[in-house]
Order: sequence, then structure tokens, then C-alpha cells
Amino acid sequence: MTDSPAPQARLFGVGTGPGDPDLLTVKAVRLIETADVIAYFAKRGHDSHARRAVATRIPAAAVDLPLLYPVTTELDSESAAYTAAIGGFFDDAAAAVAGHLDAGRRVVVLSEGDPLFYGSYMHIHHRLAGRYPTEVVAGVTAMSGCWSAAGVPICQGDDIVTVLPATLEAAELTRRLVDSEAAIIMKLGRHLPKVRQAIHDAGRLADATYVARGTMADSEIIPLAEIGATTAPYFALVLVAGWRDRP
Amino acid sequence: MTDSPAPQARLFGVGTGPGDPDLLTVKAVRLIETADVIAYFAKRGHDSHARRAVATRIPAAAVDLPLLYPVTTELDSESAAYTAAIGGFFDDAAAAVAGHLDAGRRVVVLSEGDPLFYGSYMHIHHRLAGRYPTEVVAGVTAMSGCWSAAGVPICQGDDIVTVLPATLEAAELTRRLVDSEAAIIMKLGRHLPKVRQAIHDAGRLADATYVARGTMADSEIIPLAEIGATTAPYFALVLVAGWRDRP
Repeated sequence: MTDSPAPQARLFGVGTGPGDPDLLTVKAVRLIETADVIAYFAKRGHDSHARRAVATRIPAAAVDLPLLYPVTTELDSESAAYTAAIGGFFDDAAAAVAGHLDAGRRVVVLSEGDPLFYGSYMHIHHRLAGRYPTEVVAGVTAMSGCWSAAGVPICQGDDIVTVLPATLEAAELTRRLVDSEAAIIMKLGRHLPKVRQAIHDAGRLADATYVARGTMADSEIIPLAEIGATTAPYFALVLVAGWRDRP
Repeated sequence: MTDSPAPQARLFGVGTGPGDPDLLTVKAVRLIETADVIAYFAKRGHDSHARRAVATRIPAAAVDLPLLYPVTTELDSESAAYTAAIGGFFDDAAAAVAGHLDAGRRVVVLSEGDPLFYGSYMHIHHRLAGRYPTEVVAGVTAMSGCWSAAGVPICQGDDIVTVLPATLEAAELTRRLVDSEAAIIMKLGRHLPKVRQAIHDAGRLADATYVARGTMADSEIIPLAEIGATTAPYFALVLVAGWRDRP
């Protein structure tokens, strides 16, 4: 490692949008097509959604740098052991990226959706942005992709919008839904029945739309009131639309 | 007007992103470059930010369709007269767009940021999406552009994120800031001192960043604690960053 980064070295955190390659930004395309290294987080044995969305844009000569999550399923995610394992993994991932930067390379770290909105890239950013020239390229979020595919105007004017994880308890979800004009409830999975009940209790069932794989060919977009299933894909979400006064 | 739309007729609500033409999506570029009509909302005598971001992409032969807001400054925006005036304006704007659709044209309605997230396009969508083949193309939101330019990771994991208008009363802002890991406070303008006080009262001043013209060459990105000004541009915002536990 040198004392200061090589002059061409540059770290890019690049949002790849909600999955449809057409929703990449012009800037993301240009940076991917001129990258020396394409890095991305993935689970071992699983495809990276971000990489799949940009696959046709990656130069043949670019170094492929998968950052593979450790298997931590045997650890409680609230435990100190888990925090240590995952923190060590992010340290190692950042060191791998830094190695390429020290060699003067342009490293693109792909991030589904928008890099700094729930994105894994921020673990790299947090560790390296102070040490190397860094640029973050905003992307279309998964939730924007979903309400656009559903054609659901989500908010207008002075509406308050809240993004909520489906892991919250039912009463807490209801309280927050009553307190917002619009809401997006993320990571539904097995929480679907609870979320449905909480939205019903908040009197907002008629405003709620279920969306799974929003920008994919096999998307499901259904009024929540009509959903019979008791479980959903992990990345499915519910949109609770605001904008109730429509001039 | 025909009984059913001409077969080529198509309405596109297209997000133009936060202002930087490089943050257009690939799909937005393609639709703009093949549009028959480019429609956009603007104030009379003012430039459209959305149109400016895409100006070099508009075909020479495309019809330019500005939808010019009526001058309603003499009306109280809470009054019935205002609602009637603005509702009539949106009806007329939708009729102008529908006229082109009835003639079998591909009409792109430009929308800053993301069309269905506080975008004016939704007034057209609400009136026409049931009558014509319609597609909404998600865009990068202004707030994504701002936190990316600032390099501020806004949220991670199960963080709750709230989008708040700066018009809320100070105590209400404080209550909601205490209740969320992350927040974006929009449309600062003359509300800047109140917002700063509310964030201070919530104990979150150290997490807050002021951003004006986030993706422009003359952007201002400053820790809120260091802001001396008592007023801000209307579209300036404050980011209150979540992600306090960083492994």
C-alpha cells in the first residue's frame, strides 16, 4: 500500500436500480463500461441481482470482485459474535477493494437500488470514502420501481411518507400508519398477515397495494385486500398511497 | 375524439431525476428520443427544470407542450376557489395531452425526480391512465441525488425513514424526528431556523446535513450545525442520517 492513492484510483458506489436494466442511469452505464474492477456483494452460491442487471455492460477485461457474505446463520443476528463476524467481513471486503484502488484502478461497487438507501455499498463507503477519491451515483430505488410499475401515486404536496420494516409489531405498525399519509412497508416475507391486519386496523386497507418483483416480468401487483396468501417473498412490499385530496 | 385511442397512442410519465442529465435512466432517454410530444409543467415565465435536464435529447420534430400553471397567488391555497382553479387547470392540461393521444401520438410527460413521488405528472396520470395505454418510468428522486452528492448513508437494516415537509410545527417535527432513525425534511425555504431548532431539540443536530441544489455545480452541502443563514432555497432539504450502529 502506498502513502497516497495512485492518481487514477477512484471508488464509485453505483446504484443499479430496481432490477430492470433499462432503469440504470446514463452515468451508471458509462462508469460500468469503463470500470477496471466490478465489485458486488452476494451470498455464496447465489446470484447478485445488481450484477445481473448490468451483466451486458461489464467490459470483458474488467476484474470480477464478488464480496461473498460469510455464513452466519448459526449466529443470532443480535449477538456480539454476529456483529464481530459481519464487521470483520466488511473490513475484509473494504480491504479487497482498497487493494485495487492502491493499484490505481477504477473500482465500481454495484448496489441494487440506490447505494446509500439501505444499500450494502455503504459498508465500503464508510471505510474507504475518507481515504480515496469517491463518488456515489444515485439509483432508482426498489420502492420507486414498485409504485411506478403499479401506477400508484404514492404522495403529493405536504404528505408525510414513512418507510417501515415489516418486522415491527402490529400495534406499532398501526400507530405509524395512522400517523402518516403514505407508507412503504418493506421486507414482507412471513410478516404478510400481520402487516395486512395492521393496515386494516389503521383503516387504510383500501389504499394498500401488494407488490412482489415489481419491475420483473413475473411481477405480482394486487390490492392488499384481495391477498389470500400468508407469506410473501422477502423483498415484496406494500404501498399505502397518500394523496387523498385530488384536485 | 375517437371512441378508443389510436393504436400507437401511448402516455409515458417519465422521471427526469434530480437535475443532472447523467442521472436520466436509459429508458427515459430512449422514450424522450422517440417521443412525438414532450409535455411538462412550468410556471409562466419560468424554465422547467425537468425539460432543461433532457433538452439535448428532445427530437427536433417533437411537439413542445408546456402546461403552464395559472397565476393563483391571489388565492389562499386552502380555499375552495384555489382548489377549483388548480383542478380546472389540471383538467385542461389532461385534455391537451389527451388531444395528442387521440391523434395517435406518443406523449412523454416529463416529471422532475420520480413521477409518482410528489410529482406533478400524477395529476395527468389520475385523469388519463384509465383511458389510454400508460407507462410510468421511475426516476432518481431529488433526495437520493442529495444524499449521494453529500456522501451521507441515510439508512440501513431496519431503520425507519420519514419524509417530512418543513411546514410542520416545530414540536411536531421534533416528535417525529425522535420517532425515526432517519428523516428527510423537504422544502426548507423560510422554515430553516425552525427546522434547525426542531432537530436540535430532538438531539439529532450532529446527524443533520443541509443540502441545496444537491446535484448542481453550485451545490451547497454543509453540516446543519454550521449553518448561519435564516432562510434557504425552497427546494433545499435537510438529511438526518440513520444507521447509527455500524458494524
